Amino acid sequence: MSIFETLESEVRSYSRGWPAVFDRAQGSWLYAEDGKAYLDFFAGAGALNYGHNNPALKKALIDYISRDGVTHSLDMFTVAKRDFLESLDEVILKPRSMEYKVIFPGPGGANAVEAALKLARKVTGKESVINFTNAFHGMTLGALSVTGNSMKRGGAGIPLVHATPMPYDKYFDGAYPDFLYFERLLEDSGSGLNEPAAVIVETVQGEGGINAARLEWLQGLAELCKRHGILLILDDVQMGCGRTGPFFSFEDAGIKPDMICLSKSISGYGLPMALTLINPELDVWAPGEHNGTFRGISPAFVTATEALRTYWRDDELEKSTKAKGERIGGVFKELVQSYPDARLVAKGRGLARGLEFPDGETAGKVCAAAFDRGLLMETSGPDGEVVKLLPALTTTDSEFTQGLEIIEESVKAVLSP
Amino acid sequence: MSIFETLESEVRSYSRGWPAVFDRAQGSWLYAEDGKAYLDFFAGAGALNYGHNNPALKKALIDYISRDGVTHSLDMFTVAKRDFLESLDEVILKPRSMEYKVIFPGPGGANAVEAALKLARKVTGKESVINFTNAFHGMTLGALSVTGNSMKRGGAGIPLVHATPMPYDKYFDGAYPDFLYFERLLEDSGSGLNEPAAVIVETVQGEGGINAARLEWLQGLAELCKRHGILLILDDVQMGCGRTGPFFSFEDAGIKPDMICLSKSISGYGLPMALTLINPELDVWAPGEHNGTFRGISPAFVTATEALRTYWRDDELEKSTKAKGERIGGVFKELVQSYPDARLVAKGRGLARGLEFPDGETAGKVCAAAFDRGLLMETSGPDGEVVKLLPALTTTDSEFTQGLEIIEESVKAVLSP
Amino acid sequence: MSIFETLESEVRSYSRGWPAVFDRAQGSWLYAEDGKAYLDFFAGAGALNYGHNNPALKKALIDYISRDGVTHSLDMFTVAKRDFLESLDEVILKPRSMEYKVIFPGPGGANAVEAALKLARKVTGKESVINFTNAFHGMTLGALSVTGNSMKRGGAGIPLVHATPMPYDKYFDGAYPDFLYFERLLEDSGSGLNEPAAVIVETVQGEGGINAARLEWLQGLAELCKRHGILLILDDVQMGCGRTGPFFSFEDAGIKPDMICLSKSISGYGLPMALTLINPELDVWAPGEHNGTFRGISPAFVTATEALRTYWRDDELEKSTKAKGERIGGVFKELVQSYPDARLVAKGRGLARGLEFPDGETAGKVCAAAFDRGLLMETSGPDGEVVKLLPALTTTDSEFTQGLEIIEESVKAVLSP
Amino acid sequence: MSIFETLESEVRSYSRGWPAVFDRAQGSWLYAEDGKAYLDFFAGAGALNYGHNNPALKKALIDYISRDGVTHSLDMFTVAKRDFLESLDEVILKPRSMEYKVIFPGPGGANAVEAALKLARKVTGKESVINFTNAFHGMTLGALSVTGNSMKRGGAGIPLVHATPMPYDKYFDGAYPDFLYFERLLEDSGSGLNEPAAVIVETVQGEGGINAARLEWLQGLAELCKRHGILLILDDVQMGCGRTGPFFSFEDAGIKPDMICLSKSISGYGLPMALTLINPELDVWAPGEHNGTFRGISPAFVTATEALRTYWRDDELEKSTKAKGERIGGVFKELVQSYPDARLVAKGRGLARGLEFPDGETAGKVCAAAFDRGLLMETSGPDGEVVKLLPALTTTDSEFTQGLEIIEESVKAVLSP
Repeated sequence: MSIFETLESEVRSYSRGWPAVFDRAQGSWLYAEDGKAYLDFFAGAGALNYGHNNPALKKALIDYISRDGVTHSLDMFTVAKRDFLESLDEVILKPRSMEYKVIFPGPGGANAVEAALKLARKVTGKESVINFTNAFHGMTLGALSVTGNSMKRGGAGIPLVHATPMPYDKYFDGAYPDFLYFERLLEDSGSGLNEPAAVIVETVQGEGGINAARLEWLQGLAELCKRHGILLILDDVQMGCGRTGPFFSFEDAGIKPDMICLSKSISGYGLPMALTLINPELDVWAPGEHNGTFRGISPAFVTATEALRTYWRDDELEKSTKAKGERIGGVFKELVQSYPDARLVAKGRGLARGLEFPDGETAGKVCAAAFDRGLLMETSGPDGEVVKLLPALTTTDSEFTQGLEIIEESVKAVLSP
Repeated sequence: MSIFETLESEVRSYSRGWPAVFDRAQGSWLYAEDGKAYLDFFAGAGALNYGHNNPALKKALIDYISRDGVTHSLDMFTVAKRDFLESLDEVILKPRSMEYKVIFPGPGGANAVEAALKLARKVTGKESVINFTNAFHGMTLGALSVTGNSMKRGGAGIPLVHATPMPYDKYFDGAYPDFLYFERLLEDSGSGLNEPAAVIVETVQGEGGINAARLEWLQGLAELCKRHGILLILDDVQMGCGRTGPFFSFEDAGIKPDMICLSKSISGYGLPMALTLINPELDVWAPGEHNGTFRGISPAFVTATEALRTYWRDDELEKSTKAKGERIGGVFKELVQSYPDARLVAKGRGLARGLEFPDGETAGKVCAAAFDRGLLMETSGPDGEVVKLLPALTTTDSEFTQGLEIIEESVKAVLSP
Repeated sequence: MSIFETLESEVRSYSRGWPAVFDRAQGSWLYAEDGKAYLDFFAGAGALNYGHNNPALKKALIDYISRDGVTHSLDMFTVAKRDFLESLDEVILKPRSMEYKVIFPGPGGANAVEAALKLARKVTGKESVINFTNAFHGMTLGALSVTGNSMKRGGAGIPLVHATPMPYDKYFDGAYPDFLYFERLLEDSGSGLNEPAAVIVETVQGEGGINAARLEWLQGLAELCKRHGILLILDDVQMGCGRTGPFFSFEDAGIKPDMICLSKSISGYGLPMALTLINPELDVWAPGEHNGTFRGISPAFVTATEALRTYWRDDELEKSTKAKGERIGGVFKELVQSYPDARLVAKGRGLARGLEFPDGETAGKVCAAAFDRGLLMETSGPDGEVVKLLPALTTTDSEFTQGLEIIEESVKAVLSP
Repeated sequence: MSIFETLESEVRSYSRGWPAVFDRAQGSWLYAEDGKAYLDFFAGAGALNYGHNNPALKKALIDYISRDGVTHSLDMFTVAKRDFLESLDEVILKPRSMEYKVIFPGPGGANAVEAALKLARKVTGKESVINFTNAFHGMTLGALSVTGNSMKRGGAGIPLVHATPMPYDKYFDGAYPDFLYFERLLEDSGSGLNEPAAVIVETVQGEGGINAARLEWLQGLAELCKRHGILLILDDVQMGCGRTGPFFSFEDAGIKPDMICLSKSISGYGLPMALTLINPELDVWAPGEHNGTFRGISPAFVTATEALRTYWRDDELEKSTKAKGERIGGVFKELVQSYPDARLVAKGRGLARGLEFPDGETAGKVCAAAFDRGLLMETSGPDGEVVKLLPALTTTDSEFTQGLEIIEESVKAVLSP
């Protein structure tokens, strides 16, 4: 029995679907220690938008480490942090006329969410938060409270309160007006809804099953929040950094969230890093009122800076992401039509794509079939019924050709063997 | 005005006491961009026990990155993780006859604590946790609930419930029996204390003011927990990895916690990484019931493995840490005697050392005086009244000579200018 | 200034709309100390279904007190309690084939609700409860948590959690399917809704604005609860004891709640008394696990017994209540038609009747005009926009003639002066 | 099987220890339907301080009912309420120079406590409350949260948070300074104690085991609250109305609580009634922000008024209560000395008296033996180890002679049969 089985907790999950021991990686490829190559269409659950060990970033990283650049710096001033902040300002914020202040909330996405929730409550003096059905925001207690998945919620061993779920876009397949229930509860002083400090939302729910909200729904939500004085927290941890095309996934909707959570691909190299961007008016915490050890990991700043400068000085990546996404979408639509009895649904936006199956078992079989054929992808959704694709944005056309063929074969192998 | 001031949130803290822009680092030294060298006696708040950019670890790290070793791997099987687990088993656990399973709870110490609390509640079906006065366990909602500092608690904007503070060792200066109140409440079915799932404790409270619990107090606590069926969570995030001498800070007490939280120096290089070690009987979470993006950062595994193999195959580091700690302790005792009117107190164990002043203002001035003289150290304690030293364990004798002289000068400059 | 103004808290409310000092009462009449008679169409907010100082009950009460029957008896066995239980069984439960056990939860309706909520949570091991928009269940912390009114919730000074409001019947004017959102959230394991222990519901929301749920909605709710294993708590505190016609307000719907809360008119004489009827399978509390001082007020048992025996041995009261209710409803419909511009709405069932105005100010003026004309009635609804009638079920036809004329005059005086 | 066994919930408790069916009562005597007389030394758990069916009160009550005085009046102005308020002011408040406003919080003691807790939180904006070990404040969710008994807390089926228990007087048998832990936690900003809105305390813990706090402890507590800006809520539900001698149980301590909870014997006749007296500065609730159906039960006002006028115009009752209490105390001390091996403890003040046995089983046997001999008394304390006496204050000397003989016999029968 391997050391993984004897020593690692049974809570481990990805290693169960992908029973290989990986060693090296480059671009869209992972290599197991037995030399077998796997085309990775999961990309670290969206943490590797620029591919594994992106050469441009790798060079900057090795240079930095080699010259003994500061590695760990709490929240001290460093050259690496200054470079990152300047790049963020010049490449991302200023061109978009976005005015935000930057909190370094800790190393992961959950920290970005926890900081946003804490600050929203502190600022408003209200404790309640509105989340959406099938949301995923993290596994720490605050973030888990606004996460939908009942299995994950059950892991807390404690009642998760202070959040009320509202229906996400298309929850009723468009049969009813948007925000019908939400707005009615807000306007009715007898509704029993605790007045919310904030709404937290993803533009595309990745873990929730690649549910892509329509732009007009996002606009409606932003207006509703403004109308009722509710802070809008946009959790762009998985969908930001270009996953759906633009740097921020909400750009096409033209909305202005009060807080934005970034993590996963912000460092560009898979290194832990997170940001909470806040409207400057919300910058009310006293020095140290929120802190943490891993808020100044300079190697991550270095690769983050390099990623911004390499990929976001123009709109090429945005365009190619949208185009590549359309290609996958097209293939998925064909699959939907090819198997009319299977009631498949093509979902997603940009390079966050999903193919929904009637049940989790079938979706799981398709992923297993793909793994056997050398392709990594995962299921998501409340019952694991959606095959989820989050390929690196740098995946080449020929790699997509190869990967999509495997997907078609895998679907066929499962649905009409 | 600098980009830090315009773009970074006012919540930043360390940069206020150390207004320099750091660029490079090596061993116990940080170098500002203006070339000025600072002797670092804070070591990333204990995240850099082996010094900045430790050469042995650095080599392994660059090799790994250069050869395109997997960087980000969720919780997949990787060669890097296997190496780490094997080293942990061989170098640390087996020699100490410790049987634990390893959870990778996320990138930071707060994740290790959140995982422990969640699991303790899940296993026991109880929600309440006992923490101690002046405890610090992190800034996410679960971890913050068991943290003592009122300013940090206030940052949550929400009532933090489910935890009851008990007096830490020497809270009443030894005037009363240990656990007097705690045990009485537990035994009295009318006490109104919610039956606790777990106790969470640090062996030395770093943020709380370098309060070192006596070994017999820790033993008494472990026995009390056993007697009452309460899980004992040992938060060794700051005091583990050799900070007080032995790898685990509780080794000399001979106790066996049910769960152990590790982070900060576990990667050895300042890279985000955390572990929650659990009694195998507690390994009840279903696959994925706790998960996260940054649980498999292989570069951190690589430096962690190298650190274990380099420093923990024998007891040399443990011995030198204790010796160096005694040296600091000796100097602090002399300071206490030199300024009898100042009511100083020397505190700490191993290389976690504190010098308590009557108030936070004085302690802050001493740190500022030390910074002017090129030494980094911080205050801690409820009112910032304790000068806290967490130097790298690899700090040389001559560096200690240099640093301790600065401390003596700084104290003198403040107390008898 | 009167002793009321100097000594009683400003929280007093009814005395503000009815600034008279009342002394005597009989049937549907209250007499102020200046001798002025008021026709009471509010009947103690539904606590006086048999009228003030009902002669049959009064005789039994005076007899009991005169012969030194036990007054206060905790939860001891008493002759008075036995008589009550036997009458309840014979007159109410057995004829309806209802099997319930009786908890005496304390003196008031809030106690009946608190007992039901506590027991539901204890039995199911779940903490969450579903309540409905504009529900009213009481002012103690547990009951207040499931109450909708934001002003009253704000009085708690504490976040009220553990309850999620769902839309009551006709919340969207019938435009959408019943239980659309509720059932969808229950069936979706990713919805983020905490699995509820229980649903608590009123058949007609009195405080909420005389919102009468349709029988088919109640049936649908009961089926939904059964399908999902959720306990159904029927709060019949205000609408039970014949207020809508049958003894239990849900009888016509043919449903079988798991728990039933009764209070207000159960004693028949306005004396504090409450019951929580529970499905025998739920009778799991240990002796004394819920207790209280005022659970055995024998004078209330005596009048309660007399009321059951006097009014519920046949269906005469039920029939007359429905007929009288129809009469009020008819008058209200005429008013609606007479003032087409005023957008009035006639609401209610049995002798729980409401006339909704466009705003609270107008409704308040109508009540004030009625008071000036010698009629007591109150407003309800989230903005006080509904004139609420809860006349004694024993109100005579001529009294109704008199009262309804006053209402018509008052509406006219306000709407077309 | 009786109707009690078939229809009443198993949660009933007193009827288990006293398996008789009571019918009539007068003074200190209860009469079962078989004619057997029981001397009642429990007096409705303190709700019958003036005895069962006190003749003076009974006359006023029957007169009031006979003349059709208003019975149920919500919180309207009534002659009966005015008479009560005037009497309270003249007989109780003014002679003691006490300035309070009166809230009618609902019919029972739990309502008085819930109102106090809600208001304290509302006023201070803090949610946490300090309670004491072995406190009892009621069974509704808010009151239960500050109650100590673990069995009763378990009945809630929900985590009871927002309260932290502190040691009551003599919790450590006087071995440690009063408020040692409490004050230290308050003064230490790193203690982790949520800043409390209020302290809630009983002067003698009845349910908790007849624990009588020393006057200096109460004074120390009042000073501590003042020093730290914490509201002091005095729960005088069981110990007020003369139970320990003076009308308010805290009078001899000379303290001035911010809020006082009264119920049980305030109506004098065992009828449900409760008051929350508040410092006028705390009178901030808007009209109706706390309300309820049973806040104006005029028959209770009538007997309450009569009780105040009959018994509190002079200090005779206070003196006789203290004298009678001393007599019981003397007998209990003799019992302690007579059975040195039994480790009995005599407890209490005024006519709240306890005899502590080493365990609940023994105490229960003594009560059972007393019941067989025609005396009613109950056990209390966390393990039911204290025989509790709360006789009517009007119990005559010869009745005490009779009752104390039964107690002596019963103790003897159990301890040295």
